[in-house]
Amino acid sequence: MRIVLTTGDIHGIGPEIVLKSFLRLQSSGNEFLAAGSLKALEYYRDLLGIPVRLEPVESRSAIGWIVPEIGVLPVLSVAEPDSILPGTVSRFAGDIAMRSLEAAAGLCRDGLCDALVTAPINKEAVSLAGYSNTGHTDFLASFFGVPSPIMLFVDPASGLKVALATIHEPLSKVPLLIRTIDLDRYFLSLAESMRKDFRSADPKIAVLGLNPHASDGGVMGDEEASIIRPCMERLSKALRLEGPFPADGFFGAKRYLDYDLVVAMYHDQGLLPFKVLAFDTGINVTLGLPIVRTSPDHGTGFDKAGKGTASERSFYEAALLAGEIARNRTITK
Amino acid sequence: MRIVLTTGDIHGIGPEIVLKSFLRLQSSGNEFLAAGSLKALEYYRDLLGIPVRLEPVESRSAIGWIVPEIGVLPVLSVAEPDSILPGTVSRFAGDIAMRSLEAAAGLCRDGLCDALVTAPINKEAVSLAGYSNTGHTDFLASFFGVPSPIMLFVDPASGLKVALATIHEPLSKVPLLIRTIDLDRYFLSLAESMRKDFRSADPKIAVLGLNPHASDGGVMGDEEASIIRPCMERLSKALRLEGPFPADGFFGAKRYLDYDLVVAMYHDQGLLPFKVLAFDTGINVTLGLPIVRTSPDHGTGFDKAGKGTASERSFYEAALLAGEIARNRTITK
Repeated sequence: MRIVLTTGDIHGIGPEIVLKSFLRLQSSGNEFLAAGSLKALEYYRDLLGIPVRLEPVESRSAIGWIVPEIGVLPVLSVAEPDSILPGTVSRFAGDIAMRSLEAAAGLCRDGLCDALVTAPINKEAVSLAGYSNTGHTDFLASFFGVPSPIMLFVDPASGLKVALATIHEPLSKVPLLIRTIDLDRYFLSLAESMRKDFRSADPKIAVLGLNPHASDGGVMGDEEASIIRPCMERLSKALRLEGPFPADGFFGAKRYLDYDLVVAMYHDQGLLPFKVLAFDTGINVTLGLPIVRTSPDHGTGFDKAGKGTASERSFYEAALLAGEIARNRTITK
Repeated sequence: MRIVLTTGDIHGIGPEIVLKSFLRLQSSGNEFLAAGSLKALEYYRDLLGIPVRLEPVESRSAIGWIVPEIGVLPVLSVAEPDSILPGTVSRFAGDIAMRSLEAAAGLCRDGLCDALVTAPINKEAVSLAGYSNTGHTDFLASFFGVPSPIMLFVDPASGLKVALATIHEPLSKVPLLIRTIDLDRYFLSLAESMRKDFRSADPKIAVLGLNPHASDGGVMGDEEASIIRPCMERLSKALRLEGPFPADGFFGAKRYLDYDLVVAMYHDQGLLPFKVLAFDTGINVTLGLPIVRTSPDHGTGFDKAGKGTASERSFYEAALLAGEIARNRTITK
């Protein structure tokens, strides 16, 4: 599989973790291409002494002709900065980040690459550059015309998978959203991704309740009884759904170990336990897109930029998983 | 300090963990008294072979005359069952549980005991027995005429302390509650409890945001900007409050290690990370009552009742902490 790695915000740890990951990824059986700023990659490589040769790729059409060489990372230069200022929020870094993302997404859409792994971007920088979609997932949703991609978090160390039913929403909107989104379609789409992307033919899925104690039989809220359970019953012949479980006890008692996937109703309900259990190794996978996309579960790390101390572990794992999903898709197509 | 231990629901693991804890607690420098069903304590002691002598206390007035003896647990029999049916939900067990709680709370109120540690009860059993307040905290709030006690969760292993700003509420009510409760008084009362109960004179308190990413500067919700921050600013001279922090990153990056106390805006936001980090050892402390009350952070364990496999660790730690808080209160009064 050919995997394209974006350099993310060049004032953060993105270029560093791309370079460090590449060194470890070469034996993975995949080929790699960086898309973004060649200058930034050279800057951090030289600053930190990372032994990678960077080979400019002249054009998109040359990508198919690349012959992989040990220690050589091909780079498609998308846009270049005048200067590099590690640790600063800047318009031009935001612009380069989004142009790299767009180019890399296009490479996957057009079959020139098989999967996309994105280094972190800074929402403020992206906003300064004039983009209204300041997140990767929002941008990709719009780019591919997919109204609601699913965010899945994977911990390769433990196998824990957590999907969010609602994502970046004010807490006050979540209960209404749970009532209005098409939960049936959500679960079916999730199960389809599990089959296609993870070769999990009949996944056992745990569903968390929305309310504390999953409402304790209706004492605290009724979304479990009026929305979640009826949906689970409608799908009971098609899918193996269990719950709705009280979220705190479910994670506290490590019940997630019994399931292929856990569905949280909202952002913090899924990510609080996920980040405690998998902070260093967590990976974000965007499901429901026509392309394969993964990313590390951390931010730009401006405070660490240019210091050489950033851990590439999550990015490395994200790239490995991207290759695996891309392979699975070719098998189960 | 003299600490009263209730037997909780006698069809659960309550009597077993009271007996097992007592054996380990004798060297703690406190005295102990069980309140509840003598028959249940005898039943589980004999069934499980726990080497404790149970000494009936004739009346409340005899409590002051008890001379502690190694291996002897004094028991104030409050109500007795006709039979004991481990693992079953029953009206009479619910009734005994609540009568024991009421008696034990009265002993603390009247100065006959210095602290209360409660074994778990079953809400359904309590409801069958005709009680409208089916939880310990609700019952004690009503018993002492305290409108809103604070639930604090303590992990003695790590020192982690998490307080909830709202407790057993439907998620849909939480955002409105955050706008309407007296957050200023809440924080002041919490800090006072930290001072009085934990001898933490100037606690460093972390405040979590309500929304994902603490609203990311207003992108997702505005309670941080309109409610939480203004409250923190009003209190900035009186208290050391920091935040509001994005909850998932805060716990994932172990930032709680830098604080004496973490305040979560709602149940699952506090208890998801707490239970993952402290499932076996977590303790619940009810702050804001005129008496000291702690409890283990687990339920009745009906599936384990009578098997001898229940862990007394959380109950044991709860009793130790109850003694410590009671001592602290006598010092800082």
